[in-house]
Amino acid sequence: MKKYTHIDDIDNINSWIEEAKEIKANPLKNIALGKNKTLGLLFFNSSLRTRLSTQKAALNLGMNPIVMNVSGDAWGIEFEDGTVMNGTTAEHIKEAAAVVSQYCDVIAVRAFPSLTDKEKDESEQVLNSFVKYASVPIVNMESAISHPLQGLTDALTISENSTKKRPKVVLSWAPHVKALPHAVANSFTQAMQKMDVEFVIANPEGYNLNSEITKNTRITHNQNEAFKDADFVYTKNWSSYDDYGQVLNTDPNWMITKEKIDEAKFMHCLPVRRNVVVEDAVLDSDSSLVIEQANNRTYAAQLVLKKILEDL
Amino acid sequence: MKKYTHIDDIDNINSWIEEAKEIKANPLKNIALGKNKTLGLLFFNSSLRTRLSTQKAALNLGMNPIVMNVSGDAWGIEFEDGTVMNGTTAEHIKEAAAVVSQYCDVIAVRAFPSLTDKEKDESEQVLNSFVKYASVPIVNMESAISHPLQGLTDALTISENSTKKRPKVVLSWAPHVKALPHAVANSFTQAMQKMDVEFVIANPEGYNLNSEITKNTRITHNQNEAFKDADFVYTKNWSSYDDYGQVLNTDPNWMITKEKIDEAKFMHCLPVRRNVVVEDAVLDSDSSLVIEQANNRTYAAQLVLKKILEDL
Amino acid sequence: MKKYTHIDDIDNINSWIEEAKEIKANPLKNIALGKNKTLGLLFFNSSLRTRLSTQKAALNLGMNPIVMNVSGDAWGIEFEDGTVMNGTTAEHIKEAAAVVSQYCDVIAVRAFPSLTDKEKDESEQVLNSFVKYASVPIVNMESAISHPLQGLTDALTISENSTKKRPKVVLSWAPHVKALPHAVANSFTQAMQKMDVEFVIANPEGYNLNSEITKNTRITHNQNEAFKDADFVYTKNWSSYDDYGQVLNTDPNWMITKEKIDEAKFMHCLPVRRNVVVEDAVLDSDSSLVIEQANNRTYAAQLVLKKILEDL
Repeated sequence: MKKYTHIDDIDNINSWIEEAKEIKANPLKNIALGKNKTLGLLFFNSSLRTRLSTQKAALNLGMNPIVMNVSGDAWGIEFEDGTVMNGTTAEHIKEAAAVVSQYCDVIAVRAFPSLTDKEKDESEQVLNSFVKYASVPIVNMESAISHPLQGLTDALTISENSTKKRPKVVLSWAPHVKALPHAVANSFTQAMQKMDVEFVIANPEGYNLNSEITKNTRITHNQNEAFKDADFVYTKNWSSYDDYGQVLNTDPNWMITKEKIDEAKFMHCLPVRRNVVVEDAVLDSDSSLVIEQANNRTYAAQLVLKKILEDL
Repeated sequence: MKKYTHIDDIDNINSWIEEAKEIKANPLKNIALGKNKTLGLLFFNSSLRTRLSTQKAALNLGMNPIVMNVSGDAWGIEFEDGTVMNGTTAEHIKEAAAVVSQYCDVIAVRAFPSLTDKEKDESEQVLNSFVKYASVPIVNMESAISHPLQGLTDALTISENSTKKRPKVVLSWAPHVKALPHAVANSFTQAMQKMDVEFVIANPEGYNLNSEITKNTRITHNQNEAFKDADFVYTKNWSSYDDYGQVLNTDPNWMITKEKIDEAKFMHCLPVRRNVVVEDAVLDSDSSLVIEQANNRTYAAQLVLKKILEDL
Repeated sequence: MKKYTHIDDIDNINSWIEEAKEIKANPLKNIALGKNKTLGLLFFNSSLRTRLSTQKAALNLGMNPIVMNVSGDAWGIEFEDGTVMNGTTAEHIKEAAAVVSQYCDVIAVRAFPSLTDKEKDESEQVLNSFVKYASVPIVNMESAISHPLQGLTDALTISENSTKKRPKVVLSWAPHVKALPHAVANSFTQAMQKMDVEFVIANPEGYNLNSEITKNTRITHNQNEAFKDADFVYTKNWSSYDDYGQVLNTDPNWMITKEKIDEAKFMHCLPVRRNVVVEDAVLDSDSSLVIEQANNRTYAAQLVLKKILEDL
């Protein structure tokens, strides 16, 4: 595999899930595969799970992880072509990506959206610049509009915890105090579209995701109706897509409660704000899969790195 | 061993000291013990010695250390139960600790006190939350009121440098420009209470440590009297405990001088402000053990990690 | 080798270049040499190439790299002797260097100049304090006035790309918006003085480098004349040395263009501001060696570390 930047880089989600389960059952089996290979983890934004689980995945494959907080540790990077660089950026991505490719066999990048410029965010400028100018495979650790390591993790978690041939999975928006990106919701939607599940999205009016991503997925503004007979309730806040990056609604009635989700399993990518997005009673119950989801981040990353290493 | 958060986790200080000496004599002997095990080092505060010596200890045991500056690298963590998280914290310790436990076989945490809220500091909220919500062993890399890796280091250093069966050890307060925590003084006191030494604490009025920690240890406000026939002078500034977190005294007469300590060995956990806490002539003399103390931090940490690994 | 802080630590540049080429051809040959040895990388300033390439070099030698951003991660360090440390610095270099020497077998340091105090910058206070107070070998990852890992890299790159017995090499100043250090230009000059090249420096009036460094190297204020028949054009901005640390000139006529350098190979240490220092057409052409230069940073660092490890 030459890159992993989008859910579409998964050629067959069912076989990937099976392979991820094998890795989870025997995580050190391929520890010779990454010997003397280096994974560069470049963070333009904060990270806990992604930072640690991707390092852990690399270690399980015998790789050497090198972590860098780009903004704090290095130089301001310029992404525009042809700029006269007399401002605050000191190094162009053309050089930065090419240079890092000399030291790292694989580069993983996290770069969040602005949430102020839809067109620019959708161009995936940072991620795609790395793909374009690096000479080694790029892994997306959450970009402006995609978080495919999380989407793969979520598919694995649903597969592991499903007791039905075709479970009902609901992606529900929930309130939050800040404007958040769409990346997790987008990649979860795209992963579910590849799986044999009954998939519904519940969000308030004005909060529909990009229709080019949701396609013919059913969207409802009635959360209770969506939750009826749900097997999995995946929760995430996102800011408005139509009124781009705006917080139009903080209605606490959309918060996830134990009563609402009944017997359904609760999922969230974390970090999650307790008693804003979801009440304590859900997270502290056996219905919550969030910690196991976080655990699966390691195996999703390890599967991706394994496929990349096998193809180096 | 299931955790190392307090000097009381040392079951037998003399046997621990002997084992630490064996590790120091042959630091790579157990390099197979930590193979494919990961130590997560989580810093809520600055660190030089602890940061490097704990990593070195992990490497000597063959472990993979992963370092994270929690505040800068990840998300603001909420420690209160039942909070509606609509403020600045983005992730609850319940999730954070459980999640990090998925990636790390052992978690080491540094989190200093507020020095403004005695009750909260004494509850050891951060450290104890990790102990409560993590599913792996926790190592204290200096908490609100304890620094047991330093205390163990100091016991080892005194044992190595003692020429008497029962040396006289003085813990002396010294002046400083800032309000500092009590953790080092507390853990040193508790370590000395376990050892066969004549132990005295010298501090100005208003600077007695928590009497639940000092117990029946002799406290004097007369530094010169305390230093008489001392074999070891351990120096540390701390803010007032009774007038919690306040700087009541910066009297330079309490600064440690060569003349005052005479033939005694000088100890300090570092960092130390020269010519405020102690004069150059002491630190630059053969009486100073501070560099060897810092060296012993590696072996104290390695002993603790070894005991934890043996019990995983 | 006991330290690598200056180009003068290279005893024979031609044999070093040959050895660096051998390392580049077989970078993992000496992976047993650094086993269980630790390299501490201490950054007082930003770094991309140096940070990653020096880690990569250490990994190629089997060493364990430990990275620390001194300012953010640890304590403010005092470098003056005899100070009463009642200000913002919390730890003296005497302790800091001695302590880090306990945990690291080799220490690499990056510390830029103030550009406000020539005498202090030229004293190399930070670097030389580490040399003086550390008990292990010190590697200079760019100090106030020297960047010898870059100078060695550049010598290697010229040797690899030269088609003549005695190529013409021009070091040309170029404009920049900020006041930059002299370290790269100094070390490049000193490296070229050791090689069998025709070496010329081109810079505007008021921008001559320290004459104790340039010695009898030819300096011209006529860039076009310097570029005539040049084989290599090495470009770098620096602030004025005579009018210390000032930006006297931002004349865009000094920017490097494809037309100006004609057939010459273009070199720069990076990061480089496009269309300020050099136009896109140069960097995006086959004449540019900048990415290969960055690649060679690994092998220069690896050669230095190898020589140090062989002598531990």
